[in-house]
Amino acid sequence: MIYGVNLYNFNVNIESFLSKRARIIDRELKKFINNIDFGQPKLIEAMLYSINAGGKRIRPVLATAAYEIFKPDFRRILPAACSLEMIHTYSLIHDDLPAMDDDNFRRGIPTNHKVYGEGLAVLAGDALLTNAFNVLAMNSKVKGIKPGNVLKAVEILSAKAGAGGMAGGQAADLEAEGYPLEKRFSSAGKLLNYIHLHKTADLIQAGVQIGAVLADAPEKDCRILSNAGRMMGLAFQIVDDVLDVTADKKKLGKSGSDARNKKLTYVSMYGIEKSLKKAEELLDRTRKELSLLKRPASKVKVIEEIAGYICRRDR
Amino acid sequence: MIYGVNLYNFNVNIESFLSKRARIIDRELKKFINNIDFGQPKLIEAMLYSINAGGKRIRPVLATAAYEIFKPDFRRILPAACSLEMIHTYSLIHDDLPAMDDDNFRRGIPTNHKVYGEGLAVLAGDALLTNAFNVLAMNSKVKGIKPGNVLKAVEILSAKAGAGGMAGGQAADLEAEGYPLEKRFSSAGKLLNYIHLHKTADLIQAGVQIGAVLADAPEKDCRILSNAGRMMGLAFQIVDDVLDVTADKKKLGKSGSDARNKKLTYVSMYGIEKSLKKAEELLDRTRKELSLLKRPASKVKVIEEIAGYICRRDR
Repeated sequence: MIYGVNLYNFNVNIESFLSKRARIIDRELKKFINNIDFGQPKLIEAMLYSINAGGKRIRPVLATAAYEIFKPDFRRILPAACSLEMIHTYSLIHDDLPAMDDDNFRRGIPTNHKVYGEGLAVLAGDALLTNAFNVLAMNSKVKGIKPGNVLKAVEILSAKAGAGGMAGGQAADLEAEGYPLEKRFSSAGKLLNYIHLHKTADLIQAGVQIGAVLADAPEKDCRILSNAGRMMGLAFQIVDDVLDVTADKKKLGKSGSDARNKKLTYVSMYGIEKSLKKAEELLDRTRKELSLLKRPASKVKVIEEIAGYICRRDR
Repeated sequence: MIYGVNLYNFNVNIESFLSKRARIIDRELKKFINNIDFGQPKLIEAMLYSINAGGKRIRPVLATAAYEIFKPDFRRILPAACSLEMIHTYSLIHDDLPAMDDDNFRRGIPTNHKVYGEGLAVLAGDALLTNAFNVLAMNSKVKGIKPGNVLKAVEILSAKAGAGGMAGGQAADLEAEGYPLEKRFSSAGKLLNYIHLHKTADLIQAGVQIGAVLADAPEKDCRILSNAGRMMGLAFQIVDDVLDVTADKKKLGKSGSDARNKKLTYVSMYGIEKSLKKAEELLDRTRKELSLLKRPASKVKVIEEIAGYICRRDR
């Protein structure tokens, strides 16, 4: 593991935990999308195509793990967990469009617009985004979940995915494409941080925040988890920048389009070694932040291990 | 008014009511978008460009009018009202994209992607859609508005705008483009109804529903308003089909792209006269449905008049 971040000792448990939970989330996701009333069949098919393309379901798993720090039975927040993955999937579909990153492959299969055409791909993304809020709102019907907390979750998800969150990060990313090298050392560092924080970290952060909020966790604990989510999300994106350069297409399941699109990335700005050092620092800070939680160590450890896992070079 | 639907006697009051209320909504809309935390400036600019392009703000005005049937002070639901317009505006931006209707003009000015490029136009739409749910959720912080009802509004808006609603209607519309003439008389009627009901009527219906729900109106009254909203929404889209053919570009502020895109429309299927007859029938049924409300006639009348107004040929 040359380029890997190896701050934590790994055991197989976290991988089996992740894949087991991902399977549960997968099942729910398909159920929610297949059960959409009056859904136009071709549109539902396009939505399911990208949902079924797989992925580690990191955001929903993080939400359930954060919930479990405070309450048992993570199944009570499966709707909320799924809404996070629907938002994530929509962002990938739109991100791959010719007008954006123009990617032909994602997770080893053709991107949505390559199969369904650009028009339907735009709509499939729109629908996943919109229906995510429907699925999330439905969580209020689950026993033991306070409607007021679901409303808070709607606030968090919409803020973290909107113009001040992920969409803002994507817009900055788009604007920064081809950012001239000579300009990079004036305000490019700030721009790069904005992009990473919002493009990726915001939705990771939203995952742990929503898990904690739905568990009715104390304000202070919500804040700790929110901070931890932000830092692990940033670390995750930095490692992703590195992977875009170092991983082969087969492993990543997509073509490394950053260099082709002249993206402003951690690697293009600081190089691989320094980027990985930064990611390690962030993971360390994540662990320190999580240690502030006065909660059962075994439960907190799960979040820590997920953070470590998503920053692995061979994830 | 040759092609107009003239079921109701008009007085100037409804027009002045509409424009006065639209101005109030305009102000709030700009405030909400300008106040987005950490919003990426170029993205906010693109969002405001389409918000500022005008429009009658029919959906938010309908929501406030429905609210006023039950409660005074419509200002209490301005966030919810604005969320409807944000959803509507996002749908126009995406609808105009080259991969969809490929329109260069909307409301007399260049479409969003013509000014900001396709990538940013996609993101501006995404952000308006996402932030709409943030603005809606904020309505729970207004005195006198029950959080449980705001959650219901989130459910309604996401269902009516999602894959089983507006996005589904758009997908069907896209699929029906160039629908061969010889096939039109098998299931095309059903398809056409699906398109109109979902592409347009759903969001109009959501407007009156959300107004009633936030006013804590009895279930029965909510249902009546929902039915009325559905029928007036359908009438509105039929008249829109007619206008796309008959109105000149200057009046409509956009090019009539239906024929160019070989769209399946009421006009292409039934011709102008029959289409307008159908719209009149629907308006009549709207009025009858509204008469079932045992509420102050003057308040109900406003909804009736808006319904009549939006189906006018010269609106």
